[in-house]
Amino acid sequence: MLPRKIADSTVRRLAIYLRFLEEFQAAGQGTLSSEVLAQRAGTTSAQVRKDLSFFGSFGKRGMGYDVPALATRLRAILGLERRYRLLMVGAGRLAGALAEYSGFTSRGFDIVAVVDRDPAKVGTRWGRLEIEDVSALEAIVLREQAEIAILVTPAEPAQALVDRIVSAGVTAVLNFAPIQLQVPEGVDVKNVNLAVELETLSYALAHRVPQ
Amino acid sequence: MLPRKIADSTVRRLAIYLRFLEEFQAAGQGTLSSEVLAQRAGTTSAQVRKDLSFFGSFGKRGMGYDVPALATRLRAILGLERRYRLLMVGAGRLAGALAEYSGFTSRGFDIVAVVDRDPAKVGTRWGRLEIEDVSALEAIVLREQAEIAILVTPAEPAQALVDRIVSAGVTAVLNFAPIQLQVPEGVDVKNVNLAVELETLSYALAHRVPQ
Repeated sequence: MLPRKIADSTVRRLAIYLRFLEEFQAAGQGTLSSEVLAQRAGTTSAQVRKDLSFFGSFGKRGMGYDVPALATRLRAILGLERRYRLLMVGAGRLAGALAEYSGFTSRGFDIVAVVDRDPAKVGTRWGRLEIEDVSALEAIVLREQAEIAILVTPAEPAQALVDRIVSAGVTAVLNFAPIQLQVPEGVDVKNVNLAVELETLSYALAHRVPQ
Repeated sequence: MLPRKIADSTVRRLAIYLRFLEEFQAAGQGTLSSEVLAQRAGTTSAQVRKDLSFFGSFGKRGMGYDVPALATRLRAILGLERRYRLLMVGAGRLAGALAEYSGFTSRGFDIVAVVDRDPAKVGTRWGRLEIEDVSALEAIVLREQAEIAILVTPAEPAQALVDRIVSAGVTAVLNFAPIQLQVPEGVDVKNVNLAVELETLSYALAHRVPQ
């Protein structure tokens, strides 16, 4: 029913539109023009209309979008009408910061277990969670019915870990390890490489035209 | 001399190609085909050739790319032939994890100062750095000649902070605050929104075709 080949960049913008729609909704605003939404999201109104057009018809010319209706529709499109159970693989400092990040739970992403290979960490508590041994990975995925894994490890163990995660039945991985993971068809991996983000800035600085 | 209107997604892939070229170089490999590079980077050889074609002619048909030469060229394109001085704005748990992240220094990004608004944090040490009061932001940018800011704050203070950072002369911002920042022409902002990354996965899970 819904189109499947939508670019990641489009999905990302939909997620960003939803944030602003929810802000406007919280402020009691009933309708919103594509121009205002575009301005808040740092894009053009043509882009907003194009992104939404993939998913049907929204808004009436000259009337703007119905804020609560569009927010509901975007939540459905983004799969946010239910909660997701996440396994954190790696319990280092970045993983800890991510686990504390309120932006996850508020959007329906619950970290239900955390594993590490360091015996000094295993058994210690992480808020509500106790860090478990990575050797029990498969059993933990099964026990917790985890659907998404967040991989926050160095590059070296990452591929072997993702092989085990995928064998255990996880089909979506948010990867912070600085390596391109090989996964079978039907498994989605999104990479977050923070150094790469900085390099888009050094690129911009290196190619800046003097003003 | 170099093209200016290159998509972010292209620049990101160049940064990823560079990582693999450096791996191959460290392993003593002299030449590399676009097919192998594409496979490692999770893309197609046509995409590799297209991405590189923006920047001139590389490699010879049937011979592959000269690994050290292409790595050197990509470092130049990405502006990585020199080091960058970074100001961290916000000293929370995520900021601390980022400051520890070895991937930054190894690519030439040095965090030279960190500021926070919490009096309990100001004056405490963060490895080599001492957390300074955000009220001195402008003086710190000047003293440290910071070129890039990493903004790791809640949404609420972020716009006012970026206004001050930009007035002080910083022209590149890596933004972790969940807000679309407004900046003048000539300032580059890259947003990292970790919940949005998860939402590209929930989108994928919601639209998965049963196998």
